[in-house]
Amino acid sequence: MFRLLHYLLYTLIFLGTTSVTVYAQGDEDALFIKRIHDRILSNGSCYSWLSHLSEEIGGRLAGSSEAELAIAYTKEVLGNYADTVYLQPCKVPHWVRGRQEVVNITSMPGGSIMSLGGLALGNSIGTGPKGIEAEIVEVRSLDEVRNLGFDGISGKIVFFNRPMDPTQIRTFYAYGGAADQRVNGPAVAAEYGAIGAVVRSLTTSLDNVPHTGVTRYTDGGRQIPAVAISTKNADLLSKLLKNNPVKLYIETHCKMSEVEKDSYNVIAEIRGSSRPDSIILVGGHLDSWDVGGGAHDDGAGCVHSMQVFQTFKQLNYRPRSTLRCVLFMNEENGLGGGRAYAAQSEENKEFHMAAIESDAGGFTPRGFSVDANDAIFPGLFRQLTQWNSLLEPYFLSLTKGGSGADISPLKKQNGLLMGFRPDSQRYFDFHHTRNDRIEAVNERELKLGAAAITSMVYLIDKYGLNFSHE
Amino acid sequence: MFRLLHYLLYTLIFLGTTSVTVYAQGDEDALFIKRIHDRILSNGSCYSWLSHLSEEIGGRLAGSSEAELAIAYTKEVLGNYADTVYLQPCKVPHWVRGRQEVVNITSMPGGSIMSLGGLALGNSIGTGPKGIEAEIVEVRSLDEVRNLGFDGISGKIVFFNRPMDPTQIRTFYAYGGAADQRVNGPAVAAEYGAIGAVVRSLTTSLDNVPHTGVTRYTDGGRQIPAVAISTKNADLLSKLLKNNPVKLYIETHCKMSEVEKDSYNVIAEIRGSSRPDSIILVGGHLDSWDVGGGAHDDGAGCVHSMQVFQTFKQLNYRPRSTLRCVLFMNEENGLGGGRAYAAQSEENKEFHMAAIESDAGGFTPRGFSVDANDAIFPGLFRQLTQWNSLLEPYFLSLTKGGSGADISPLKKQNGLLMGFRPDSQRYFDFHHTRNDRIEAVNERELKLGAAAITSMVYLIDKYGLNFSHE
Repeated sequence: MFRLLHYLLYTLIFLGTTSVTVYAQGDEDALFIKRIHDRILSNGSCYSWLSHLSEEIGGRLAGSSEAELAIAYTKEVLGNYADTVYLQPCKVPHWVRGRQEVVNITSMPGGSIMSLGGLALGNSIGTGPKGIEAEIVEVRSLDEVRNLGFDGISGKIVFFNRPMDPTQIRTFYAYGGAADQRVNGPAVAAEYGAIGAVVRSLTTSLDNVPHTGVTRYTDGGRQIPAVAISTKNADLLSKLLKNNPVKLYIETHCKMSEVEKDSYNVIAEIRGSSRPDSIILVGGHLDSWDVGGGAHDDGAGCVHSMQVFQTFKQLNYRPRSTLRCVLFMNEENGLGGGRAYAAQSEENKEFHMAAIESDAGGFTPRGFSVDANDAIFPGLFRQLTQWNSLLEPYFLSLTKGGSGADISPLKKQNGLLMGFRPDSQRYFDFHHTRNDRIEAVNERELKLGAAAITSMVYLIDKYGLNFSHE
Repeated sequence: MFRLLHYLLYTLIFLGTTSVTVYAQGDEDALFIKRIHDRILSNGSCYSWLSHLSEEIGGRLAGSSEAELAIAYTKEVLGNYADTVYLQPCKVPHWVRGRQEVVNITSMPGGSIMSLGGLALGNSIGTGPKGIEAEIVEVRSLDEVRNLGFDGISGKIVFFNRPMDPTQIRTFYAYGGAADQRVNGPAVAAEYGAIGAVVRSLTTSLDNVPHTGVTRYTDGGRQIPAVAISTKNADLLSKLLKNNPVKLYIETHCKMSEVEKDSYNVIAEIRGSSRPDSIILVGGHLDSWDVGGGAHDDGAGCVHSMQVFQTFKQLNYRPRSTLRCVLFMNEENGLGGGRAYAAQSEENKEFHMAAIESDAGGFTPRGFSVDANDAIFPGLFRQLTQWNSLLEPYFLSLTKGGSGADISPLKKQNGLLMGFRPDSQRYFDFHHTRNDRIEAVNERELKLGAAAITSMVYLIDKYGLNFSHE
């Protein structure tokens, strides 16, 4: 009911300003968007913030002391640019990797041991110090496990080896097409009696770097240890299996804590001058995997969002809507922060006119994907594409698509959701690895991303959004 | 006259196939362009060719033995995919860097020496073993040298320190706005009696890596030694100059040979099945600077062009027009290859329906810039943009702009010139430095570039071009 009122209100605001929209969005907006870009490219702090997050603090898995340091650091920085900054409590799992993993082939001719290296999958159980050892069975899909059944799987270690499809132009689609092996593969293998699981790393690169990431057990189902190995070692293992059975020894010391921990989303706010009840959110997630520095995933999204606040302050731009920067906790292995934020927002009967998440890296910007409920999408998309001529000088375009894991629970508020979309070609070279460090981020590309998001927030804030149904 | 006949002929061909153009360029073309991308992303050899060129062979300055190796290697590879491959003679300068450069501040308090490092500019004269030493005068422009005049400049070393403009979204524009200092600065300084020149490296990065590149003396004018120093050292030097006069010692051992050398463009050709007199050229330049491996500049453009041939052969696509891959020699410090090619083409009364140069790196593709004479440009551009829906799935767009140094002399043939345009944000991190190595090239990005060019060649070849005047 409250929300319906919001619709009507903002639709009226929009209609009332339509003529202004059409005539004013020429030179003045082009000029302001240029000022945003000039300022960020010349003086933006996002790269040095990212350097602090990823190098001084490092990997920031939810529940870790690094995550706490990151909360304190970003709260302090945002305090310089916001009316208020506060911490929003949330519950998070606490998973710890422990000592370095061992993944060895123990069936080599002559009795030698071949070490493959590897990384335990996030949230997985450990083998303990005695490890596990069993014959490998290679599959390309979860269905293949089901087809092999208990007879083919029981007592074995299942090796999921379907590569990401290199012919997908958007690498996230290739990721989406292969990630079920990591997320659900171990649980399905466990159902059929497997004692462990090995997953080919999710990357289009052929290299020696293993990629971690979350796996999910079925509620009440069996849990088995699960590791990722590099794509080169997956190819090697597959080749060896063509000739002879292969036995693998896996030792992991990871552990999920029995009780959840208290943690926080970091929230900064500038109160809207004329539409304070209409919220525009920009955000990313503050947590990252423990290996590497979480530079692209998702330190970049955090500093992108923080940059919006610094730039508006520097340019003396006072938003009409309430502007919120939300650095979510625990996107990687639980979404505790995203769920807590949405629940609190519901309780407060808030309306997010727009929420933009940056969680696809700090690469050169290509645009935004637009998500909204079907009834309002067409009118909304049409309004947004009216801004194309303002976005094209920066090579930005709008596509229909998803937004971000943390903000997706806000969809029921019937506002606009957007995902910032940088170029995706290199993202999975670094994703969830030890190499996701500041060296993998180009300063100009990061800054251009922040400028793109700031420009989009400016346009939405200035003109409001048209939520009329069609 | 011959050329006028060509116009009429190809205009007629185009008019005759217009209806086909409109109705057939949907699914069949989309499918073929997808096949091009799939094939290159899965099996293209461009990355391994580039690895050979930049790492096994290395820097390939015109006249060097590495350039000769590169000629032999690419001729051999192209032989597998073309009807004919031949070498086209051209004359090139032969400049040699010699022993490592010394650039030292000799006026530090206490008498210590501060080494700045540096790279002699291409084609510049050396100081010889005795070096030169003089007081520095910092300027931001060539006009500032002229304003300081003989009194302010004579006997000094001129330090050109205007940075590239970081607010330019296209970094090539920022390069274009600063490159006069390197290309013409030393010659102008010499006019006013300077004994040497130091140039701030042309990059938007702030780092310790000096960038070389060509400088040009005035015909018959004085010649003075010229070096580039890194942007960090340029900032340091500028800071020191704010307090006290600074003396610099420069020692370079570079030398331009008195006689030109014989070298070659590598040309591969597939004869057109139905329009053999209509040429479509794809090319890059085979030479590079001596430091680094010339991976992005312009090994990438060479292997992009070679990839077109491999892919057409793999897909059994027989072009209607004659397809030529030209690997030009000596783009960096003379354009000997480009001039020889154009002269020979004039003599043979050839008509290049289209010429596409890739000389902006192996980064993720963003599109093509389109160049043609004013009379034919509007109709041509309109025809090309009819293909937008085929290009958009690959994030490619067309803009008005330049093409490439090697093919620019072909403009008088009144065909279409195009420059392949990858993302430019990282290009000047590597350009003309020791870091322009295979490690700086992402395999997927390189392959996507090759696929973009192959797709464009396919469309131009299949439909011809509309050269009617408007």
